[in-house]
Amino acid sequence: MKIVLIGYGTIASALMPNLLSEFGGEIESLKVIDPYGAQRLSADFDFPVTWVAASVAKENLEDLLSDLDSDSFVINLSVNVSSVDLVSFCQQKETKYIDTCIEPWAGHYVNADSEPAERTNYALREAMLTLKAKCQDGPTAIVAHGANPGLVSHFVKRALLNIRDDIYGISQPIPQTRQQWAKLSADLDVKIIHIAEHDTQIAKLPKRPGEFVNTWSIDGFIGEGCQPAELGWGTHELRLPPEGQRHTTGCNSAIYLNRPGASVRLKTWTPAFGPCLGFLITHNEVVSLSDYLTYFEGERAAYRPTVNYAYHPCNDAILSIHELSGCSWNPQAQGRILQGPDIASGGDYLGVLLMGHKKNAYWFGFYMENSVAQKLNPESSATSLQVVAGVIAGMKWAIANPRCGIIEAEEMDFSFVLDNAKPYLGEMLGEYTDWSPVEDDKGLFSTASSDKWQFQNFME
Amino acid sequence: MKIVLIGYGTIASALMPNLLSEFGGEIESLKVIDPYGAQRLSADFDFPVTWVAASVAKENLEDLLSDLDSDSFVINLSVNVSSVDLVSFCQQKETKYIDTCIEPWAGHYVNADSEPAERTNYALREAMLTLKAKCQDGPTAIVAHGANPGLVSHFVKRALLNIRDDIYGISQPIPQTRQQWAKLSADLDVKIIHIAEHDTQIAKLPKRPGEFVNTWSIDGFIGEGCQPAELGWGTHELRLPPEGQRHTTGCNSAIYLNRPGASVRLKTWTPAFGPCLGFLITHNEVVSLSDYLTYFEGERAAYRPTVNYAYHPCNDAILSIHELSGCSWNPQAQGRILQGPDIASGGDYLGVLLMGHKKNAYWFGFYMENSVAQKLNPESSATSLQVVAGVIAGMKWAIANPRCGIIEAEEMDFSFVLDNAKPYLGEMLGEYTDWSPVEDDKGLFSTASSDKWQFQNFME
Repeated sequence: MKIVLIGYGTIASALMPNLLSEFGGEIESLKVIDPYGAQRLSADFDFPVTWVAASVAKENLEDLLSDLDSDSFVINLSVNVSSVDLVSFCQQKETKYIDTCIEPWAGHYVNADSEPAERTNYALREAMLTLKAKCQDGPTAIVAHGANPGLVSHFVKRALLNIRDDIYGISQPIPQTRQQWAKLSADLDVKIIHIAEHDTQIAKLPKRPGEFVNTWSIDGFIGEGCQPAELGWGTHELRLPPEGQRHTTGCNSAIYLNRPGASVRLKTWTPAFGPCLGFLITHNEVVSLSDYLTYFEGERAAYRPTVNYAYHPCNDAILSIHELSGCSWNPQAQGRILQGPDIASGGDYLGVLLMGHKKNAYWFGFYMENSVAQKLNPESSATSLQVVAGVIAGMKWAIANPRCGIIEAEEMDFSFVLDNAKPYLGEMLGEYTDWSPVEDDKGLFSTASSDKWQFQNFME
Repeated sequence: MKIVLIGYGTIASALMPNLLSEFGGEIESLKVIDPYGAQRLSADFDFPVTWVAASVAKENLEDLLSDLDSDSFVINLSVNVSSVDLVSFCQQKETKYIDTCIEPWAGHYVNADSEPAERTNYALREAMLTLKAKCQDGPTAIVAHGANPGLVSHFVKRALLNIRDDIYGISQPIPQTRQQWAKLSADLDVKIIHIAEHDTQIAKLPKRPGEFVNTWSIDGFIGEGCQPAELGWGTHELRLPPEGQRHTTGCNSAIYLNRPGASVRLKTWTPAFGPCLGFLITHNEVVSLSDYLTYFEGERAAYRPTVNYAYHPCNDAILSIHELSGCSWNPQAQGRILQGPDIASGGDYLGVLLMGHKKNAYWFGFYMENSVAQKLNPESSATSLQVVAGVIAGMKWAIANPRCGIIEAEEMDFSFVLDNAKPYLGEMLGEYTDWSPVEDDKGLFSTASSDKWQFQNFME
């Protein structure tokens, strides 16, 4: 296997030790393409690494990757490189592929000449689905398969089974098709699914003015935070949220808001400290999961859950977003990514919160303390190691299933993936809660709808 | 003068040394009424202090204060004590009075049986105005006269004169009546006034989960933050903001939003770091200033500026608000008020930002570094000392003008007050800026109105 790693940021540097420990014997060569990564490629690796100091762009993509072949495996961990164009080229070259997010070329998210709808993940995914339809038997290319998007789609399947088992006992078969999964979700009456993440990591050094502090890529977070807020739109919803917009083409599973996701806050729940406020950041999984779990009766979408990401980043990132918004989303001059040793305490709770069923709400996911991540891999933090888990497990699935064409997380075998991701995820947790967005509301303002699971009740 | 100090929190403890240095010779007795303040009344004072361990409530007010007379001066720095009832009693007793905020009795802000309109500062002020009309020649009772509300109303007058001088030269007379001030503001075409505050103080110890951290009263901040967002509503505004509501009675200078002020963020500007995001916290001055600056042609309000508070609290308070909102505004179990020595760096920029005139926007106010406040008064921080300034200057004005009845900041002589406040305010700053809320907007979302000074453009 000839590995070509595009982009060498926090995730790639955390991946590297595990890539070698997991696939070392199978790796023929290892090439890294990144404009700045060289100095971080330490000499400690047991394997020779070829470093290409370049940014992949539309103009140089084919030249830079001209030696790809059917033994190659492209791991795309960059930002600002079009996933669609890269996958398309890999398909031509018979090369396997994985990424952690469907990315556009640089400038797409900040192109004021485009409509907000064009800057959604919905639009990016629709372009990928168009390509997918043309590459049915191509080499396996797994798109959007880090932690989230990626592992969380498998968490949803496991959570649906756990809820069913807890309500009806464990004698029932595991769904095998998309419609069977959607039917299960419909039968359980799951109305809302949050990807509910609470990053509790606290930096040793507090954020300074003019500095964006985060536990992972700052460009990545600002990029997605400035995309329109976006969510899969459930069939139980009675009315669009303020500034909510429907799409006019495509699968129609999602809507977007005419404002940046990092400016929309909504209530969620995790086992970290219970209720918390997350940002309505757009993510590919809110579109793909809501599409996958749509139950059709004939042509009619009879059932679909609302699916959204509710992301409580680390405290210094909340302050960074607050500052960024005050500056009309013009990025700070300085950035600081917290590496493992920069973190005084805390970790990352990442899971899925399935709400509306008989047992009210169920969170399923994992918690990893930063100190534990550090022990597993000194190059990682609690936040980066979970993405590594998705990439490693996805690669193993692609190697075991090499001719599936373009694949989304929901189409993969969730138990295979979870088994392979588990060593990197720390403690897996499943927890029921009585929480709802109107729970504990003091009724001072008339916001609550008669149905407590309406999306509007979650909005700050 | 017999001083009766009600409430012994951060402001009162910062006030104490300056009270004695400013009025020591005139003070016959000094009584403090507070349920918990005893342990903080250090033995270092040069003056005997009588401590009464009690909370003032509707039931015990007259008993606790039965010995008030015309030599007394009540300084009310409590929360949860009705200013209207207390002022009314002081008027009966011929006692001078000052507070820093028009407060209701405990429970008013969290009474879900009341309408949001009843929980506004507009309603509290209207009740005070009703009392005021009955006490025209009573002993002077200055309401809402700390830093803000209080000093900032005097800053606005100074700022209006500075702008006029800079545009037209300095030969013009100083307005003497309310309508003359309103005319000046109208003639200068001031469309929006922000009370623009940026608290840049950074704690040595970061906020922990379940803890509200602030540079001043936590009960006070949560109380006002959970009141409806509120603002003086200018005559140039084209449409109400989302969830905006008009009042049906009273002076009609202000509107409120049907949501907590601490959940509404808007762009503002201070000399600290330029643009920043503040909370639309309600304050008495947004109602009183917009009322005072309304220019009438006959019965018709021909001109009124929009007036709102845009408060960027210290970073740990931003995180505390974020957590509080996620918990449906149910207060954290722990609170921590940052005293001077707990603060690693930073200070407080408090001023007024007058926008829309020929020179675009002008911020006038002061900056005090916490370390400077500490030198002036070791019991204070940059945040508490500014409130002390308003109280001291207000008391001096009341002593010089003893029979004015109930008085708002706007009715006082601004230059007298500013002269007496200045020793506590650090560096006074006046700065023009080209900033506007649509400045630097990248145009990714269609929010901007054709008139850049519309309130909607300021909203996050």
